[in-house]
Amino acid sequence: MPKFANFVDCNQKFSINSQPLPVLKEGEILVKNLCTSLCRSDIHTYQGKRVEKSPTILGHEIVGVIEELGPQAPLRDVRGNDLKIGDKITWAIFASSPEDDLSKAGIPQKAKDLFKYGHEQITEHNHFHGGLSEYTILRKNTPMAILNNELPNEIASLINCSVATVAGAIRLAGELNGKSVLVNGAGMLGIIACAMASKMGAAKIIAIDQNKERLEISRNFGASEIHLPNESLQDKVDIVLEFSGAIDAMENSIQLLNIGGAAIWIGAVFAQPAVQINAEYIIRNLITIKGLHNYNNEDFINAVSFMEMNHKNFEFEQLIKTGFKLEEVEAAFEYAVNHNPFRVSIDLT
Amino acid sequence: MPKFANFVDCNQKFSINSQPLPVLKEGEILVKNLCTSLCRSDIHTYQGKRVEKSPTILGHEIVGVIEELGPQAPLRDVRGNDLKIGDKITWAIFASSPEDDLSKAGIPQKAKDLFKYGHEQITEHNHFHGGLSEYTILRKNTPMAILNNELPNEIASLINCSVATVAGAIRLAGELNGKSVLVNGAGMLGIIACAMASKMGAAKIIAIDQNKERLEISRNFGASEIHLPNESLQDKVDIVLEFSGAIDAMENSIQLLNIGGAAIWIGAVFAQPAVQINAEYIIRNLITIKGLHNYNNEDFINAVSFMEMNHKNFEFEQLIKTGFKLEEVEAAFEYAVNHNPFRVSIDLT
Repeated sequence: MPKFANFVDCNQKFSINSQPLPVLKEGEILVKNLCTSLCRSDIHTYQGKRVEKSPTILGHEIVGVIEELGPQAPLRDVRGNDLKIGDKITWAIFASSPEDDLSKAGIPQKAKDLFKYGHEQITEHNHFHGGLSEYTILRKNTPMAILNNELPNEIASLINCSVATVAGAIRLAGELNGKSVLVNGAGMLGIIACAMASKMGAAKIIAIDQNKERLEISRNFGASEIHLPNESLQDKVDIVLEFSGAIDAMENSIQLLNIGGAAIWIGAVFAQPAVQINAEYIIRNLITIKGLHNYNNEDFINAVSFMEMNHKNFEFEQLIKTGFKLEEVEAAFEYAVNHNPFRVSIDLT
Repeated sequence: MPKFANFVDCNQKFSINSQPLPVLKEGEILVKNLCTSLCRSDIHTYQGKRVEKSPTILGHEIVGVIEELGPQAPLRDVRGNDLKIGDKITWAIFASSPEDDLSKAGIPQKAKDLFKYGHEQITEHNHFHGGLSEYTILRKNTPMAILNNELPNEIASLINCSVATVAGAIRLAGELNGKSVLVNGAGMLGIIACAMASKMGAAKIIAIDQNKERLEISRNFGASEIHLPNESLQDKVDIVLEFSGAIDAMENSIQLLNIGGAAIWIGAVFAQPAVQINAEYIIRNLITIKGLHNYNNEDFINAVSFMEMNHKNFEFEQLIKTGFKLEEVEAAFEYAVNHNPFRVSIDLT
C-alpha cells in the first residue's frame, strides 16, 4: 500500500502511514511522486506558525510520473503536449474551474471551488493530495506540464511554487528589459527572481538581505549589486520585487522607486502591523503597488519554460539540501528549521 | 497692452497688470484666452494652502483661440488636425520634451524640462503662462487640441485638468465594462469620473461623499448608488477611484475591493499622516494601488473626445458658476472659497 507522511499539528511528529489508492474519478490522473521540496509555508505549518486543517499531507512543490489516466482525464498539458503514462510532469499548486469569474479574470488561484495541493485535509473521499507521499492524485482542472527529462527532479520541483510565483511577480512588474530591479529578500524566491530578471534583460539587479551569505550567492544568480538592509542605495530603481515580508523593507523600498515605478509585494503573507504609506508620494510619483499570492496558468507555463531553458545556466543544485527519503521527513523539517537552507528536498523514488 | 491677474501670495490681493506681448519664439503659439476655470489647486494657492513661486499667473484650465503662429510652430494638433489662426483650442497643463525618458515611458507630466501652465513664475523672459490673463503663449511641445466650436467655453475649459486627470485615472483602472466602480469624493473630478465610467459601461457606480447635495448631483452624472462615508456598502467593488484625499477613505476603500481589484489614488496631493495598509490583505487579495498626478497625452486626447461626445449628455453647466470677468478674479476666488461650487469660471472674452 502507498505510504504518505501524515501531519496532525506542530506538537506531533509525522507518522508514515499507508493507505490503498482509491479508484480514479472523472478527470483525475494518478502520479507516482519522484521528488517534493519543502516550501517556506510547509515549514511554517510544521513550526505551528500557520495552521492547516489536519490530518493533512504537506508538500506542494512536487514532480512525478504519470502512472494512470482516469476516465475523461485531460489529453494535453498546458503547452498542448499529449499526456501519456510515463511522462514526467509537475503541476500547479491549485485546481479550480476555468469557468469561475476569477479564473476568467486570470486569477484561478482564488476561484471559488479552489483545491490546493499540500493544503487539504485528509478525509475518506479526499486523499493523496500532498507531496509528502508516494502518490498524488491530480484533480480535474489541474494545470500540469510534461517536463524535459533532462531537468533534475529536485530542480523541477521548485517550479511549483517558487518559480511560478516569481514568474507571476515579474508578469505584474511588466517589461524588465533595461530596467533596474530591487529584489528585497534573497531567499529561494529572491534568488530565482534575480535569475529571471537577469534573463529578461534587467540592466541592474540589486539584492537586499540581512544574510550576507545569501547575498553572495545571489551574485551567482544575476544580482549585480548586493546590500544589507541598512545600507543606502546610490540610485533609485524602476521595480521592487518584495519577498522579505518585512515592514521596514516594504516602506523603505517604495521611497527608492523612480517616478512611475512599481513595487510587487509577495512576501508578507502573515499577520503583522500595518505598512505606513505616504499617499502624496505615491500620487506625485505615480507609484504602483501590486500584491501577488500564488500564480496563474500563464505564470506556471513561464516557470516551466524558464527552468527548462535555464537550469544549466545557474547552479540551482547548490540551493537544495537533498538526501532525505519519505521516512526521514521529520529529520528533513528539522534540518530546514535548524540550518535554513534555501530548500530541503525529499527523494520519493 | 494685454492684461493679466498678477498673484503674489495669499496675503495680497490680485492686481490687474498689463504688459506688452513678447515676440514669439520657436515653436510657440499665441492664444487669445476665452475662458479659464479655477481648479482646486488654484484655490489652495489663493488660500495659502500651497505655495507657488511668485509673482505668477494662476489658472491652467483654459480654452482660447489661436491668434498667431510663431516660427516653426507645430502644424498639427494631438489628433492630427491642421492648426490655423482662429481655431478654438485647449491644451495640456504641461509642455515637456517628447525625448525625455519619462515622456517615452508615458509620463510626460514628470519629464525633466517640465513647464506647467498656471504654475510658473513671471520673469522677464517667461510670461503669459497662466489662464488668468487675456493671452497665453503656448510653449513648444505643448499637447493641444482643436475643439469643436459647439463645445461651450466654460465646459471646454474643464478638459484641462479635471477631465484629463479623470481620463488618466480610468486608463490606470483598466477595462470598466461590466465592472463595479466606487468613486470616493463627488467633487468636480468625482462627478466627471461617474459620467466617464457610465459611458464606459460600468455596471455599478457608487459615489461616496460627505456632502449630500453633491451626492444627489452625482446621480445625474451616472452614479447608480450614493453613500455618506459612514454608511456601509452591501457588495465589494472592482475599482476604487479615490479623489477625496481623506486617509479614512483610502484605508476603508481598499477593504471594499474584490480579489484582483484596483484602487487609483488621485486626491491626496497634500502632506498628511501615513495611510495604514495591511500588506497581507493586499497580497492575498491581489490588490493593486496606483497613484496618479496629472495625466499624459493619451489622457488629454481621450478627455477632449469624451467632452465633445458627451457635453450634451450631462448637465455640466450646472456645475459651473459663471459670470466673472478678469477684473473680478478676486471676487471669483472669494466666491469659490465661500460657496464651494464645483467650478468657478472666468470669462475672458
